[in-house]
Amino acid sequence: MTKPFMFEKPLGMRDTLPSLYEAKKSVRNKMIREIGQWGYQFMETPTLEYYETVGEASAILDQQLFKLLDQQGHTLVLRPDMTAPIARVAASRLKNDGYPQRLAYSTNVFRAQQNEAGRPAEFEQIGTECIGDRSISADAEMIALMVSLLQKVNVKTYTIAIGHIGFLHGIFLEIVGTEERAATLRRFLYEKNYVGYREHVKQLPLSSIDKRRLLHLLKLRGDFSNIQQAKEVLEGEAGKNALEDLDQLWTMLKAYGVTDAVKLDLTIVSHMSYYTGIVFESYADNVGFPIGNGGRYDKLFEKFDREQSATGFGINLDRLLEAIEVKKLEPVIHGILFSQERRMEAIAFANQKRKDGEKVILQDIAGVENVDACTASFAEVTFFLGKTRKESE
Amino acid sequence: MTKPFMFEKPLGMRDTLPSLYEAKKSVRNKMIREIGQWGYQFMETPTLEYYETVGEASAILDQQLFKLLDQQGHTLVLRPDMTAPIARVAASRLKNDGYPQRLAYSTNVFRAQQNEAGRPAEFEQIGTECIGDRSISADAEMIALMVSLLQKVNVKTYTIAIGHIGFLHGIFLEIVGTEERAATLRRFLYEKNYVGYREHVKQLPLSSIDKRRLLHLLKLRGDFSNIQQAKEVLEGEAGKNALEDLDQLWTMLKAYGVTDAVKLDLTIVSHMSYYTGIVFESYADNVGFPIGNGGRYDKLFEKFDREQSATGFGINLDRLLEAIEVKKLEPVIHGILFSQERRMEAIAFANQKRKDGEKVILQDIAGVENVDACTASFAEVTFFLGKTRKESE
Repeated sequence: MTKPFMFEKPLGMRDTLPSLYEAKKSVRNKMIREIGQWGYQFMETPTLEYYETVGEASAILDQQLFKLLDQQGHTLVLRPDMTAPIARVAASRLKNDGYPQRLAYSTNVFRAQQNEAGRPAEFEQIGTECIGDRSISADAEMIALMVSLLQKVNVKTYTIAIGHIGFLHGIFLEIVGTEERAATLRRFLYEKNYVGYREHVKQLPLSSIDKRRLLHLLKLRGDFSNIQQAKEVLEGEAGKNALEDLDQLWTMLKAYGVTDAVKLDLTIVSHMSYYTGIVFESYADNVGFPIGNGGRYDKLFEKFDREQSATGFGINLDRLLEAIEVKKLEPVIHGILFSQERRMEAIAFANQKRKDGEKVILQDIAGVENVDACTASFAEVTFFLGKTRKESE
Repeated sequence: MTKPFMFEKPLGMRDTLPSLYEAKKSVRNKMIREIGQWGYQFMETPTLEYYETVGEASAILDQQLFKLLDQQGHTLVLRPDMTAPIARVAASRLKNDGYPQRLAYSTNVFRAQQNEAGRPAEFEQIGTECIGDRSISADAEMIALMVSLLQKVNVKTYTIAIGHIGFLHGIFLEIVGTEERAATLRRFLYEKNYVGYREHVKQLPLSSIDKRRLLHLLKLRGDFSNIQQAKEVLEGEAGKNALEDLDQLWTMLKAYGVTDAVKLDLTIVSHMSYYTGIVFESYADNVGFPIGNGGRYDKLFEKFDREQSATGFGINLDRLLEAIEVKKLEPVIHGILFSQERRMEAIAFANQKRKDGEKVILQDIAGVENVDACTASFAEVTFFLGKTRKESE
């Protein structure tokens, strides 16, 4: 009967045992509550979507999609993110509701992994989308809300790095001339491969001035005052609007009082397509990957025959849990062991304790092989056995 | 850009918009709280499992499995139920914990559907598993807990129908002689095709007495006192233990005070394989399918190289919502519209309201195309525009 995979899970898949489950739930609920207080409404979409709608509209690389065929022969995907599915709904069933729409989700998303050492293939994202608001205020709200969430769940040291895809588009096209060459540069930044970026730039057939401009880009990270330097890197108009957006954003973040943890990073790409404006990533000191990221995506709705500006972010709940080193929560359970004759007494006692809000296990001793092992995890035990009643052993 | 499936979802897949989402959440939370108070611990397993472990161990028919290949060429399934995954975990990572183990889940499961009129292909199940308790007390606890859940969420009229797979096995084998013929009879009952069962029985090469016994089986439904009749239908020993189990169960359910809604139904099969003892299904007056079902499955653990008795049940949250005709919940949102100059004032006001527990949308009026449409859904609106402050329009 033994099978090779008997206790195995597919690559990148994990179980969440009770103690971690409760810890996750506690953090999740704090975030859901806060997002709700900012007026966002939660919704759910299917785990499976058509590849040609949501699969292709998503920001996730094709090889990271879990694909399958349905019984009608259509290709389906396990949703790789929630932004495209929410856009599908907002562009159809919600299209007659007023704008801006503020929607939110808390659900698992799927990304196929290539090897054992890889990242999880299924993980929980909690996120928001603000649809139909072109103003930089909407971008500022995203960042202020993300900061508020990180504070609510007690992330001690975090940073929000902010960039602007428009700036990169502008300067790259201005210097290298074609979208294809610009995409090559973007990919190095997307992969955060700064060494590769430098090597590549050095080999480009460009003037030494232009090379210096491209290399200088890597330094446009850190204090927000680097926006001044960024302006100097630019020559033409391209990218200027982007820097004006960032100037405005900074003023708004000051109004929110959240600039302490915010820094500039004009190298942020986050996704190869998809984003169109301000983008941001959040980091915690002790976690190697971003715990959340987001940005403006004004072109996604075109894939659903609509024009609509939008911005949003998602937080990876598992990485967030790493950041706060959450304690696993063990339940406090009152165990009641009874024998046949005293069943009714035991049931009445359990009913009362449960009414009082206690967690109570009511256990027929006839169903127990090892009483010591059975009661080991109980915070309190009451026996209803034989004629006498012993309590709280 | 228009695509044929632009706004479509795969067969049997559904969106849950915000108002229904909140209604579901409210019902789900009540049930989770109650299950927790009975000492059950919630856990999570991956959406994808290996076909050859969990897929084959599940009670679900092969054609209802969503299958896909992973990048290593293994067949994966979207979990069709949670019992087999929980058994996988209980048989491995939890195997050194004390028994009985009480575990629970609240998650989506997947069943591929064949046609448009079919049932949902993804739906939420809330359920429990009690592992390692052979006593009928464990079966009684399942039924008492299910009744308690239906009461907590205010299902007005419900029935729990209780049967015993051991009884069917016993009488079928005694009369038709082979497991294959017995399986044919079971399938009619599994499909609740009583007309087909009758026709089939009439054509069997059996004595008229045996045919009467098989037909009489269909009448062993209703009041629990029918157990007496069931005893008369039996001739040999087969099935007698099953009826003794049911006798014991009835006494225990009386002790719990939950017999009002309980009836006997010895035709219940629920699944073609899988169950081994007492089985039960719950019905609400206005819903055509069972809203929940469960039973004892003492053989499943063999598939994970263990011997372990277990019983459990699952409730279909969507069907439960039909049963209670839950009201969709609209959020009460306080909208604050501000112009650039009064941003800080508006932020301070929003912060205070959120601290007071209100749901507040803070909206830059520059991001709004149609103020009337934007504010239409707000319960209260406060404007911070220009020099004067107007409140609560």
